[in-house]
Amino acid sequence: MRDAYHEELDSIGDGLVEMARLVGSAIGRATTAMLDADLHLAESVIAADEKVDDLQRELETKAITLLARQQPVATDLRIVVTSLRMSADLERSGDLAQHVAKVARLRYPESAVPRDLQATILEMGQLAQRLMAKAREVIITKDVDLALQLEQDDDAMDLLHRTLFQHLMDDRWKHGIETAVDVTLLGRYYERFADHAVSVARRVVYLVTGDYADEVDPAAGADAESARSKNA
Amino acid sequence: MRDAYHEELDSIGDGLVEMARLVGSAIGRATTAMLDADLHLAESVIAADEKVDDLQRELETKAITLLARQQPVATDLRIVVTSLRMSADLERSGDLAQHVAKVARLRYPESAVPRDLQATILEMGQLAQRLMAKAREVIITKDVDLALQLEQDDDAMDLLHRTLFQHLMDDRWKHGIETAVDVTLLGRYYERFADHAVSVARRVVYLVTGDYADEVDPAAGADAESARSKNA
Repeated sequence: MRDAYHEELDSIGDGLVEMARLVGSAIGRATTAMLDADLHLAESVIAADEKVDDLQRELETKAITLLARQQPVATDLRIVVTSLRMSADLERSGDLAQHVAKVARLRYPESAVPRDLQATILEMGQLAQRLMAKAREVIITKDVDLALQLEQDDDAMDLLHRTLFQHLMDDRWKHGIETAVDVTLLGRYYERFADHAVSVARRVVYLVTGDYADEVDPAAGADAESARSKNA
Repeated sequence: MRDAYHEELDSIGDGLVEMARLVGSAIGRATTAMLDADLHLAESVIAADEKVDDLQRELETKAITLLARQQPVATDLRIVVTSLRMSADLERSGDLAQHVAKVARLRYPESAVPRDLQATILEMGQLAQRLMAKAREVIITKDVDLALQLEQDDDAMDLLHRTLFQHLMDDRWKHGIETAVDVTLLGRYYERFADHAVSVARRVVYLVTGDYADEVDPAAGADAESARSKNA
């Protein structure tokens, strides 16, 4: 039988899983909204982010209440503290999906993404969604091998990001500055979204093994400068 | 006389103050490195970020140890949990300063910023540094009025960000796509840096008053889309 304490701990885990589900769905829908120039869909993604923010606040309140009342130690304490960090990653991922949707809204009735880049952006959007689906799976299963897979997926995101920069830097770029700005920011949003998914998975690895999956800062790996300098 | 418990709590506060000092200095030096195309300075900013990451890790270890051993409740518990979040904001600010320095390095021996935008970028860099200096002051003094000042400074950053976009979107833009990409990312880095400084200050307000300074998400206020849509 589960006692109240473990029920509270489980409920924090459930909150994380639900947040990951929502933001994974949001990045997928935001990408569709942008590629299809679907204003209605974009608006719905923008509005739905409130739910993610609410969940994060609930989760934080639960975590702090649990710390105060139950005073967990050792593994349970690590779970609670790590959950707070994961919820911050997920909340931020939701913001990034919302940013993508805002680009879609800003450029409506046009699509922000020119035709010759739509395939790359679609791939980035799908990869971002898959990364978050895997991160969610990792939260549920605590599967360290699956968590390590996310590192490779993130390399693939880095490659796509470089492809995007190659297009931008190509002398034949004919879409003007405004579109270059949109594409630059979109690339950054997807890359950061992927970073947060990887970060969530790494935190699970830390919980299970006590080691950081990678001593390198999750965010430092695939920033825009490294993507570009590899092209330079 | 201070007991060991309060010494540990103070030491966490000291770590935050030191992190804020380091990242404030980093954004100032990164801006100079970029405007002056100073490779040596850029490299030193990039290398120095490790110290910030180390401090964050130390601070987290201290916080978790304190939670486990001392099991603080009420205000002290809130201080520890909030400190963990502030350290995440500060660590991320350090990354953003490093990103600015990487743009400087990437474009060396040129400056990444064309002459007619140098004044705006200098202002953004200086404002970012001042915001972080104030955030540091807020951590030390717990001064709620000063914390609220940061909101206004952030509005000024938003205005500068819009100025930057106005330049980019001007038909007379003659600096090409590569520079447009640099300037877009730089604008984003300064804006996010400012968001994190504001977020640190808001967390102090939350500690002191128990209320969020603003029910709105700190990151949602001044994103690139709103900066641009106000120009559209």
